[in-house]
Amino acid sequence: MSLKLTILGCHSATPRVNAHPTAQFLEIKNHQFLIDCGEGTQVQLRKYSIKFSKIKHIFISHLHGDHFFGLVGLISTFRLLNREADLHIYGPKGLKEIITLQLKLSNSWTQYPLLFHELTSNESELIFEDSNVEVHTIPLDHRVYTNGFLFKEKLGERKLNVNAIQQFNEIKICDYQNLKNGRDYTLQNGTVLKNKILTLNPDAPLSYAFCSDTSYFPEIVPTIKNASCLYHEATFLKDKEALATTTKHATAAQAASIAQQAQVKQLIIGHYSGRYKNIEDFKTEAQEIFENTFLAMEGKVFEIY
Amino acid sequence: MSLKLTILGCHSATPRVNAHPTAQFLEIKNHQFLIDCGEGTQVQLRKYSIKFSKIKHIFISHLHGDHFFGLVGLISTFRLLNREADLHIYGPKGLKEIITLQLKLSNSWTQYPLLFHELTSNESELIFEDSNVEVHTIPLDHRVYTNGFLFKEKLGERKLNVNAIQQFNEIKICDYQNLKNGRDYTLQNGTVLKNKILTLNPDAPLSYAFCSDTSYFPEIVPTIKNASCLYHEATFLKDKEALATTTKHATAAQAASIAQQAQVKQLIIGHYSGRYKNIEDFKTEAQEIFENTFLAMEGKVFEIY
Repeated sequence: MSLKLTILGCHSATPRVNAHPTAQFLEIKNHQFLIDCGEGTQVQLRKYSIKFSKIKHIFISHLHGDHFFGLVGLISTFRLLNREADLHIYGPKGLKEIITLQLKLSNSWTQYPLLFHELTSNESELIFEDSNVEVHTIPLDHRVYTNGFLFKEKLGERKLNVNAIQQFNEIKICDYQNLKNGRDYTLQNGTVLKNKILTLNPDAPLSYAFCSDTSYFPEIVPTIKNASCLYHEATFLKDKEALATTTKHATAAQAASIAQQAQVKQLIIGHYSGRYKNIEDFKTEAQEIFENTFLAMEGKVFEIY
Repeated sequence: MSLKLTILGCHSATPRVNAHPTAQFLEIKNHQFLIDCGEGTQVQLRKYSIKFSKIKHIFISHLHGDHFFGLVGLISTFRLLNREADLHIYGPKGLKEIITLQLKLSNSWTQYPLLFHELTSNESELIFEDSNVEVHTIPLDHRVYTNGFLFKEKLGERKLNVNAIQQFNEIKICDYQNLKNGRDYTLQNGTVLKNKILTLNPDAPLSYAFCSDTSYFPEIVPTIKNASCLYHEATFLKDKEALATTTKHATAAQAASIAQQAQVKQLIIGHYSGRYKNIEDFKTEAQEIFENTFLAMEGKVFEIY
């Protein structure tokens, strides 16, 4: 099992040449999710050779422009590409009105089903689930209603203990699925082999927590506890902590503190303010608190096993 | 007098790397106008070092995404840059609702005055005028309500005929403005010198007609007659004339025919469909009908004297 995250944009506020606003492409189990969609995201998807047709679910954290102004363009491009598959969009209430108004006035209704799942709760809720993956909201503290998203693999099937199984010739390939499902095996002589003798524990499920934008908000710690990977915004360095508080953003140190409290496996920071010339300073600051910190960079791919 | 046009984007439909949708920056007399604002326009403005503060008037032809999806982002960036000056936006009815809904839901009202001038007429109308320049709409024929725009210099002051003036010592610098304004000059001996002896005709006013998107629509010819420069969309080559008719776009040959009928000084074509790999084919086709044809290219600057 693995989880693959491609950073499409990781800067705050206004898009600039080579400094795109927030967008991420997450591959987890058999799913591909787009998280946030700042202006220019569709060009970034092309730049990093991500097939548009893979995207079936888009998650929008909040209605500040640097997190969703690229959405209507992407929806329109799907139309021009003759998409037929459903597109599910999860985001704050109001997003549906914004998109449908523009489609109406441009006389450009999509020929594919466009399904909005509008969010209003201030409690973490399960918003997507199938047999492999579930997605929960992470209510954040920002200037407008904002959610992060927790993407979790479900516990997989048990794994065959091939060495153990080979000791019993009468166990055939057609029995394997029952073993993976956890069932015991009864030999022809009546002996019952406990499942745990014949199988191994499944891989530990991976999880990815996306938290942007938000102030320093320790209330999220229980929700993101032990995540395999946490992306947490770090708009400022601690020299601007007062400004972070006023604007309801976080510093690199605060992001690292959340990572430490939640005991996540690794931290990625991003959403850098344009005022900082040396992005490495964010890493230095965060690593004083949480060593396993990485910098989001456009086009960078994080693979987590 | 001169007119300077910077092409920020000249491709149709979906934005791609190095193929941005329609946006142009026009400098005429003491004005700087932005024409259309496809997704990514603000990044293109930065790329070509155009100061955001110069833009006080934005003209939107129609509400297809490739002509206005970048507008809300630009408006938001002006806010983040602490703009104070008025911003005037001219475009189809509905544009104000689209923009204000997004500003409302993102809790990001502009601190500067944002003034919408919504267009509904199917007749050419004067929508901007000052002592130097006037702007008229050019109603076009497209799938949704669409206007082109005609930017016209006003006739300037008369120019001093320095050689003639030097023959009369008693004419002083303080008299020059009266001469430029067309007044005769009375010498101390009572002789009246006709103004046309002392001055030359002003430069011929320049004009720029922007026509996109539109089908082949000769009804525009009287409005754009003799323009110094015409930009006319050419989405297709004539091999796809039937498709052009269906989608209410034009071919390169049709654009050239309009230029010829209107006897404009030069033609720029653009809004190329992504299906064509060799843009030069558009020029070849147009030049069979109208020799003085140029291709719009991103970053290309046209200066017209």
